[in-house]
Amino acid sequence: MTQGRFITFEGGEGSGKSTQAHLLQQKLGEISIEAVLTREPGGSPGAEEIRHLLMRGESERWSPLSETMLLYAARADHLMRTIRPSLRRGYWVISDRFADSSHAYQGAASGVSTELLDQLDAAVVESTRPELTVILDIPADIGLKRAERRQDEEEFRLEDRFERRRLDFHERLRQGFLEVAERSPERCVVIDGLKPAEEVAALVWHAVQTRLLETE
Amino acid sequence: MTQGRFITFEGGEGSGKSTQAHLLQQKLGEISIEAVLTREPGGSPGAEEIRHLLMRGESERWSPLSETMLLYAARADHLMRTIRPSLRRGYWVISDRFADSSHAYQGAASGVSTELLDQLDAAVVESTRPELTVILDIPADIGLKRAERRQDEEEFRLEDRFERRRLDFHERLRQGFLEVAERSPERCVVIDGLKPAEEVAALVWHAVQTRLLETE
Repeated sequence: MTQGRFITFEGGEGSGKSTQAHLLQQKLGEISIEAVLTREPGGSPGAEEIRHLLMRGESERWSPLSETMLLYAARADHLMRTIRPSLRRGYWVISDRFADSSHAYQGAASGVSTELLDQLDAAVVESTRPELTVILDIPADIGLKRAERRQDEEEFRLEDRFERRRLDFHERLRQGFLEVAERSPERCVVIDGLKPAEEVAALVWHAVQTRLLETE
Repeated sequence: MTQGRFITFEGGEGSGKSTQAHLLQQKLGEISIEAVLTREPGGSPGAEEIRHLLMRGESERWSPLSETMLLYAARADHLMRTIRPSLRRGYWVISDRFADSSHAYQGAASGVSTELLDQLDAAVVESTRPELTVILDIPADIGLKRAERRQDEEEFRLEDRFERRRLDFHERLRQGFLEVAERSPERCVVIDGLKPAEEVAALVWHAVQTRLLETE
């Protein structure tokens, strides 16, 4: 049986990742490719428990370093329980966030070293790297506004509320995602997240066709 | 103010670590040195929550890799919230288990690479390494019996119950602790954990005197 393909969506909050992940799953379904839709942090029962530990609680509950270790503990579980078994069974896997989010949030925006993140990728992600990563790019000021709007809807730690209200955090975050694309141009596609959803979906589909389907 | 000194106790279950840690705290108190007694996994509110996540649940809940990441997330929190602030205030810190337990349990006994554990030590423990580590050595068959006895008293995952009932696990564990001592002879003292508690306490105190007090 052919191994499935692994695709990730990355970008700041409100950049349209979840919408595009769903649209891609539908589109693949139309050509009879079954894709498992998953997300991080989470994606397996153990990883969802770690997500809960990360999200709830008081201001400054976890240092960026503890946060990084918790995220990679969850990622190891997600890979072992969900991603690798699905790929082995021939399903495609679409993940709403993956390791690049750690490089952007914990690395570029919060100061954890790229060296450590690369070491964790080597130990935890190993060879299960995405073949295609779609980075939805939005300007920092819009990222800030969208993050603020979402904070009323979702459960966030106070730490995030304070930190994420700062424009320079969103600037570092955006640069972090763009650095990921620069480091790995062979797998990354940067798409303007301000374009209408249908237009973004068409660009995503074009990337899937040229980078994955035509190389099968 | 002088920085406090950092001492750890390591060894298998039932090797007498907790008893000796308490006795050393008392003995230091007699010469007016105040020592904070702590333990791993745990030692800070966040780390205790991670301990809870590690301990409860079903058989084979976490892979050795996820377990390692969770332990280092807890360790980062323990260092930031408990160990480093206590040392800065001039207290001595005595920890019942620390990073060497990851090298023995997750590394030597469960197959996580020394390279990764060394990288995690560099990133998380940094320069807060113990100045003295007491390794209480017990033969594998006795470690096995003591671990079995304790399983009726304490909360353990099924995974541990099965795995820890095997003699070769306890043999790898023992060798893991002895390798730690071989790699870092300048800070490690190996003491026969089968000796009577008073005799072990006297040897521990001799090590503290010669390695820490006489060098102050």
